[in-house]
Amino acid sequence: MPELRKSPIANRWVIIATDRARRPSDFHLHQQQQQPSHGFCPFCEGNEEKTPPEIFALPHNGREPNTPGWQTRVVPNRFPALAIEGDLNRRGDGLFDYMNGIGAHEVIIETPQHELEMGDMSIAHLQMVLSVYRARILDLVNDVRLRYILVFKNFGLAAGASLTHPHTQLIATPVTPRVVKQELISAQSHFLDKERCLFCDILAQEIKDGERIVSLDDHFVALCPFASRFPFETWIFPRKHTAHFSQSSDELLHHLAIALRDTLKRISIALDHPPYNFVLHNSPNTKGNARRPGYWQTLDLDYHWHIEIMPRVTKVAGFEWGTGFYINPTPPEQAAKYLRDVEVSWPD
Amino acid sequence: MPELRKSPIANRWVIIATDRARRPSDFHLHQQQQQPSHGFCPFCEGNEEKTPPEIFALPHNGREPNTPGWQTRVVPNRFPALAIEGDLNRRGDGLFDYMNGIGAHEVIIETPQHELEMGDMSIAHLQMVLSVYRARILDLVNDVRLRYILVFKNFGLAAGASLTHPHTQLIATPVTPRVVKQELISAQSHFLDKERCLFCDILAQEIKDGERIVSLDDHFVALCPFASRFPFETWIFPRKHTAHFSQSSDELLHHLAIALRDTLKRISIALDHPPYNFVLHNSPNTKGNARRPGYWQTLDLDYHWHIEIMPRVTKVAGFEWGTGFYINPTPPEQAAKYLRDVEVSWPD
Repeated sequence: MPELRKSPIANRWVIIATDRARRPSDFHLHQQQQQPSHGFCPFCEGNEEKTPPEIFALPHNGREPNTPGWQTRVVPNRFPALAIEGDLNRRGDGLFDYMNGIGAHEVIIETPQHELEMGDMSIAHLQMVLSVYRARILDLVNDVRLRYILVFKNFGLAAGASLTHPHTQLIATPVTPRVVKQELISAQSHFLDKERCLFCDILAQEIKDGERIVSLDDHFVALCPFASRFPFETWIFPRKHTAHFSQSSDELLHHLAIALRDTLKRISIALDHPPYNFVLHNSPNTKGNARRPGYWQTLDLDYHWHIEIMPRVTKVAGFEWGTGFYINPTPPEQAAKYLRDVEVSWPD
Repeated sequence: MPELRKSPIANRWVIIATDRARRPSDFHLHQQQQQPSHGFCPFCEGNEEKTPPEIFALPHNGREPNTPGWQTRVVPNRFPALAIEGDLNRRGDGLFDYMNGIGAHEVIIETPQHELEMGDMSIAHLQMVLSVYRARILDLVNDVRLRYILVFKNFGLAAGASLTHPHTQLIATPVTPRVVKQELISAQSHFLDKERCLFCDILAQEIKDGERIVSLDDHFVALCPFASRFPFETWIFPRKHTAHFSQSSDELLHHLAIALRDTLKRISIALDHPPYNFVLHNSPNTKGNARRPGYWQTLDLDYHWHIEIMPRVTKVAGFEWGTGFYINPTPPEQAAKYLRDVEVSWPD
């Protein structure tokens, strides 16, 4: 059983994988390489029996689970960071806090096509992938042990992807990640003060200023945030206030697919196909807080879901990890201008 | 002039390098490689005129500045993240906060020897390097614009080092980095509650438990912290309560040199010469807070300086950047045991 541990100094939870602990030699540099693009891939169509049994798939077309014929397929991570079965067993040892590493760790295989990147998918297919994110979140929010459901994508070896086949990951945790918690605190404080959503206020200022906007339509805005940590960091927000991604209609996901594909394609062209991460920042899961009414209860009004895309093009990293202090060599105004000026086109 | 910007969402300051902004093509992967080990090196003895004019050097032996004969030499970073001259000019624009990027960015060239790594230095030489850290901090604390003086080392390309010649960096900032601020808040809260240092209490528990201890002598303890973010992360603490690294006596620096060299050597052997970062976590600079008595004033009692060493052996990084949520595949108890069991020896 993995463990969650909290640092009494940094006030931060960490997952410690106790089951499949790695030895020093596993970390020697020559041991580390990405799976070759060609060769056996457990995520390709026809290899369904090489993954753990599937959790969900689309389309619903009467096919048997774990057989070909799917377009997007969700399976448990073969090496899960958290275990789905068990109690949290929160406990302390002197100054240290533990709990069991309970949660979900799933892989969303975006497409049967091994080489089809998200920025090249059809809008209809990408909308289906986004609807699978929604379906998995709507299922997992019912688990009262879980506080947060993280959907994120690592693309490229430098961004942490060990498999090349297009996939997204989902980790559902019994704690709220620290960075997200800080966002929630900022948003709640702003709302209590002004009875307005912090993110809506920021979007209004950004749209008025204009210089950090990458793209804008009636439904979504993509922008390089004012205090970008990374060159070409880009966030995508729904323009209409919505706290929960899982409340998105099919129509909204259609427009999100347009905005997300456009943004990924612009980044790919501008930076010559860089590794990247994106993280869906969503409202926390409040079902387990029934014993504490009022706690995170106003979040329908004060949080605003969005996607944060972080191209991985700078190497100055460990120092930032150690201090939370970032040096960004490209002002977001310039990054946004480069991304706006990219010419993009698709076959469909 | 670089800019400091604060995210109203993440409550985090970022340095934006506005002067030497990089274009998208600068980030294309094939552009990025480390300086070759052999070839021209501006940090080697004899090339003193290729760096900006030196700030400090040891030994004090009557040599002319910017000439050969030094053992450790401090110069301004040629591409500084912050500018030393100017006013902070704190200002706002709607929801956004700015200030001028005032501060210091120095390079401590640890040795004239291009290939001499810190884990292989003589104790006397490493003690001299540490005394140079102390000298630079003691100089910069007098600048009331500065709130924090960060001393950190990037070793290896994956850890962000673009030059191979052994060097440490110093960045002095007009804000306290977020991770450090959280430490200060935790420490102050513990002290206000118990009138004891949080770090001293943790060291007592760790030494009693024993299983996360890497090494222990009368002066220093090296341990893999309870909630380690990274495999083989190791922190070195003085056993006697001390808030400020700059208060260290020559004798204490002698013992720190022993503990630091031993730890770096153990990590190097266990992990086959990995890239790593270390960050000196020190008390903030309180001289500029005279207008707000009481603010960070108790830190002599409640903070405890230490060095955090982070080997860079896992690639799962962008997700962690985006969420502050870490997955560590090696329990610190196992990492500490591996590091304890390494056999180390030096010629001196």
